Amino acid sequence: MEKPIILVTNDDGITAPGIRNLIRIMRKIGNVYVVAPDKPQSGMGHAITVAGPLRLEKVNIDGHDNEYSCSGTPVDCVKLAINKILHRKPDLLVSGINHGSNSSINIIYSGTMSAALEGAIENIPSVGFSLLNFAHDADFSQAEKFIENIANNVLQNGIPKDTCLNVNIPAIPFSEIKGIKICRQATANWDDDYIERIDPHKKPYYWLTGVFANHDAGEDTDEWALKNNFISVVPVQYDFTAHQAISYLNNWNFDV
Amino acid sequence: MEKPIILVTNDDGITAPGIRNLIRIMRKIGNVYVVAPDKPQSGMGHAITVAGPLRLEKVNIDGHDNEYSCSGTPVDCVKLAINKILHRKPDLLVSGINHGSNSSINIIYSGTMSAALEGAIENIPSVGFSLLNFAHDADFSQAEKFIENIANNVLQNGIPKDTCLNVNIPAIPFSEIKGIKICRQATANWDDDYIERIDPHKKPYYWLTGVFANHDAGEDTDEWALKNNFISVVPVQYDFTAHQAISYLNNWNFDV
Repeated sequence: MEKPIILVTNDDGITAPGIRNLIRIMRKIGNVYVVAPDKPQSGMGHAITVAGPLRLEKVNIDGHDNEYSCSGTPVDCVKLAINKILHRKPDLLVSGINHGSNSSINIIYSGTMSAALEGAIENIPSVGFSLLNFAHDADFSQAEKFIENIANNVLQNGIPKDTCLNVNIPAIPFSEIKGIKICRQATANWDDDYIERIDPHKKPYYWLTGVFANHDAGEDTDEWALKNNFISVVPVQYDFTAHQAISYLNNWNFDV
Repeated sequence: MEKPIILVTNDDGITAPGIRNLIRIMRKIGNVYVVAPDKPQSGMGHAITVAGPLRLEKVNIDGHDNEYSCSGTPVDCVKLAINKILHRKPDLLVSGINHGSNSSINIIYSGTMSAALEGAIENIPSVGFSLLNFAHDADFSQAEKFIENIANNVLQNGIPKDTCLNVNIPAIPFSEIKGIKICRQATANWDDDYIERIDPHKKPYYWLTGVFANHDAGEDTDEWALKNNFISVVPVQYDFTAHQAISYLNNWNFDV
């Protein structure tokens, strides 16, 4: 039987240890193609490059073929990979392993998860993986068996239409991982702050900082699962409609 | 009675005719503060600036105070405005008027709508406005009464929690606008293509292009409303969970 074609991307850049680990794991399962950003693209959300051109560069990082670094965002990487490298849709798209959590509200800012969402928009079975450790030298190997399991599940069973998976992994040893829990996205946000500093030319600049605030006590959320040493899997969709608000808005007076 | 505080932003940049028209309309209703990108930020989605600093510059474009151009993305503008300019949450956030449609799937790529979504995350009543005309000199005045009406409705009635509004306006004369229709997001996507060209140094580059494809025949969608000369209003939320997929995924075998 022919091996499945697996597209790998991320938002930390093509040389980040997270993606190198994901590539290594995926090579056990299928024919791997890598199209990933040539530099860090964290926090790029679902950004695409419309006003300028994109570059693709064939690279060889660890002795394997079929790897390309791209000058654009994670979503650009997915679109370019389908149109210019694969010339067809892959059997699986995996994004990550992100250095840091993409649970709950973080999904909206995440380039890693936006790449997976773009896969879903393109009807490709897609999964984003994130490890709850921002460090460059985080240990990505502890969850290896679970990542393989999820990828094989997706290849065998498929994912419902217009859906992808947001997988977050606690940064703990394999022996302490309690298993995989299917969850909903917790209701949380960031209490933002900006550090204000003065540059060498006496002009102010601002640097985003903040504290993550989970407002959701539910035990069916990704935050609860991660806190309790489970790997969280949230099925993710991209219908932004607040369906329950439609009847309320129909009561407004729109006469002008 | 004190006038409401209205924050105005966009993704086409602080000098774009779309935002200048929106500012002018909002000055009839409230005390307006403008924090908008210093350059075009179309297609930036929900990107935020995390790896570098941001700049804010006080500007005076048409003789009014309280305007700031920002070096970041539309979402950066919202976060910075709340934290560093207003020092409190505004009574209303409006984003736009975008030069071009943000209906259906376009919402996910749109900086204009991401600014409104960030407002919703911050519990600010928020609305994104877009006109279905990409031209710099598009006529933003035809829908003025409807824009005022929607802003006043929001200020008087509020918007349900965790929700903002995505307003798209057909590019037709006032007399031909049939009214406002509350809709759901149509199921649509872009059939992407990349134009490949060779640069003066003989290296290839790629430029995104594509054709919009609406796969949704429903008469309750934003695409239907716009095609039939209505202004579409979609209530928008940011819970990405595909709730209906949870029970399906619970049948998978996650033993490792």
